[in-house]
Amino acid sequence: MRLSKTFAKSTKNVPSDEKAKNAQLLIKAGYVHKEMAGVYSYLPLGLRVLNNIANIVREEMNSIDGQEILMPALQIKERYTTTGRWDDRIVDDWFKTKLVNGTELGLGFSHEENLVPLMRKYISSYRDLPILAYQIQTKFRNELRSKSGLMRGREFLMKDMYSFAISQEEHEVIYTRVKEAYLKVFSRLGLASETYITTASGGSFSKYSHEFQTLSQAGEDTIYIDRDKKVAINKEVFTDDVIAGLGLKRERLEQVRAIEVGNIFSLGTKFTEPFGLKVNNRAGETQTLIMGCYGIGISRVLGTIVEFYSDDKGIVWPKSIAPARIILVRVGDNSKVIKVADKLYESIMSKGIEIIYDDRDVRPGEKFSDADLLGIPSRVIVSDKTVESGLFEFKDRTSTESQQISESALMAKLFDK
Amino acid sequence: MRLSKTFAKSTKNVPSDEKAKNAQLLIKAGYVHKEMAGVYSYLPLGLRVLNNIANIVREEMNSIDGQEILMPALQIKERYTTTGRWDDRIVDDWFKTKLVNGTELGLGFSHEENLVPLMRKYISSYRDLPILAYQIQTKFRNELRSKSGLMRGREFLMKDMYSFAISQEEHEVIYTRVKEAYLKVFSRLGLASETYITTASGGSFSKYSHEFQTLSQAGEDTIYIDRDKKVAINKEVFTDDVIAGLGLKRERLEQVRAIEVGNIFSLGTKFTEPFGLKVNNRAGETQTLIMGCYGIGISRVLGTIVEFYSDDKGIVWPKSIAPARIILVRVGDNSKVIKVADKLYESIMSKGIEIIYDDRDVRPGEKFSDADLLGIPSRVIVSDKTVESGLFEFKDRTSTESQQISESALMAKLFDK
Repeated sequence: MRLSKTFAKSTKNVPSDEKAKNAQLLIKAGYVHKEMAGVYSYLPLGLRVLNNIANIVREEMNSIDGQEILMPALQIKERYTTTGRWDDRIVDDWFKTKLVNGTELGLGFSHEENLVPLMRKYISSYRDLPILAYQIQTKFRNELRSKSGLMRGREFLMKDMYSFAISQEEHEVIYTRVKEAYLKVFSRLGLASETYITTASGGSFSKYSHEFQTLSQAGEDTIYIDRDKKVAINKEVFTDDVIAGLGLKRERLEQVRAIEVGNIFSLGTKFTEPFGLKVNNRAGETQTLIMGCYGIGISRVLGTIVEFYSDDKGIVWPKSIAPARIILVRVGDNSKVIKVADKLYESIMSKGIEIIYDDRDVRPGEKFSDADLLGIPSRVIVSDKTVESGLFEFKDRTSTESQQISESALMAKLFDK
Repeated sequence: MRLSKTFAKSTKNVPSDEKAKNAQLLIKAGYVHKEMAGVYSYLPLGLRVLNNIANIVREEMNSIDGQEILMPALQIKERYTTTGRWDDRIVDDWFKTKLVNGTELGLGFSHEENLVPLMRKYISSYRDLPILAYQIQTKFRNELRSKSGLMRGREFLMKDMYSFAISQEEHEVIYTRVKEAYLKVFSRLGLASETYITTASGGSFSKYSHEFQTLSQAGEDTIYIDRDKKVAINKEVFTDDVIAGLGLKRERLEQVRAIEVGNIFSLGTKFTEPFGLKVNNRAGETQTLIMGCYGIGISRVLGTIVEFYSDDKGIVWPKSIAPARIILVRVGDNSKVIKVADKLYESIMSKGIEIIYDDRDVRPGEKFSDADLLGIPSRVIVSDKTVESGLFEFKDRTSTESQQISESALMAKLFDK
């Protein structure tokens, strides 16, 4: 991708009401545009990162037999009066709307009330189970305040998965598989070392749930971590009982701020019971299905990664989700330099490696600072000097020194994971 | 994909209020689930088809330098009071909602009011132009009636693209390029022969617009076509002036029903003027930008293809968008048959060819009728008989006779476009 052909540019112009570091950096780099608090547009490079994150999540959900579907945002009121979640005093972040004929509708904040009636049509026997179905879909939550940039959206992209099992035992097997898949996701996203499986409140569904909390000063949650055992407890259930139940010691726990990047809930029969989702088990007894729900905030993960992977110069993307593997900075515009740079660009592209080519007619200093701000993992410079030497000037975003390398050495580096 | 592991099954159970052939077939085949009129969930195979269509559109928009972005559904009222489109008497299919603090918001039915202010931030010179930006995003339209299945959604997936040019001449060059890209899209979707570029009303934007209309009895539009010249006129502008302007003769025109699968509009300065999107041109004169808007209804195209490509047995997908290239039907469950079928399944998958494997424990007749209903382009049978012969029984969805072929001949067929 040639930067000269991309409309979204780096900017110093960040809205004054945008206080979150993640959104500030993403706006400065031209990855997102703020529409209103908690609502952003994704510009070409930002959309690439969002899709890269979504694809990692998708691959790991598919690897545990998750079946991808897509449910609508528009929600039918009666479904939620059935479960008691229509009332704004019960669910306080509804967006609601109406059909022309006055029929009330909601905008989906979660999709249990959508999926359970749908599954009634397809599940007729224990032989159909277990089932894991998920979507990567836009959610709406009417947050009173939305001040954490992409980490608390009013409209945001989420992966929500739901499991259906014939028994508690079958449910627990799935629940554990999802937990393991989540650890793989956060590892591939570069967040493994800072992400803690955290015992939290189960809300109205069950006693406890598990959150995946990534340590960050910008986090809205307070958790207590055991760094050695790599587990944590959310403040909301930080009691002697829970500490003892997890085999932890209060004096070894450290209070920290964290961002909830994922959560997994056992829902029991909370939703399957009111919709009558039940089938016969192997023994011929009617069983109401046991359900689980598993979320990962795709856009929130994007914000979290920016909070974690950035320095005073800008973003520092992990290779797994970067919008490109390398940025090619052309310094100067004489025909020799252009020819060598164009050729290198074509050559790297032809290998299927994502590359950004800064072919703009701007000062070298601006190109270097934009390359840092954009956070592309590696940078290669083509200039009069490099053309003369026949080598290229290469530097990783995280290193301070550049090296002169040949084209074949450059290619070898790009195929490193 | 093994059918035994897919929760979405074929069903005879179609909602009684569902009168549209496209939705009836898609529900029967287990591709979609109806939530309410004009609102559908996409089940695993339906989502694959939807994504296949979206990817064809994406590739062709990228090939003319369209830059993909993603704008939000939630829309700011002030933007629309600026252009006069907030009023329900002007735009009669708004869905509206509110923030907790009472601030009114709309759900996007189109995104000019979103994109033009965004572009003001990034376009500062004629050198930045032309720009083509598009998204594949969920739209909301509060249709009074929604009776055409996926062809008239209240919530639906759309590709909407917008162009910005410094002059009318520059605009016309882009407009023509988009028109050509659209023809490629509809050709790749298998709709070329039945799709007519149709002169239609320009609404409040300009005198005329162009629609891409696909002939179908199920269409909601009436158009007049010249089959030889392959052009058409929408009833709404079917006047002597328009007929003469296009060099057509009234007596050669045939009245038909059609589905509007795409449209392209010249917007002039209708949106750029109120938002003050203007820059200096090459001569140093301030110019308000000339804008175009280009839509393709992704989910509507899906419905249209089902209307067109189906017979009394079910759907007949074009290869370009089919959820799989081939369906493998295993007849019988003795260990030899299972072994040969499993091996063929793995072998085809390993070549990167999408395959559905009907490994279910149901009657052969049900498998054959489901294979037809699902509309997979080719079918291969593994049975006692084929195992004995060492060949496979192969049939295209569109042919009536099957043939006995070797594995290598089968593979050769699957690599045919």
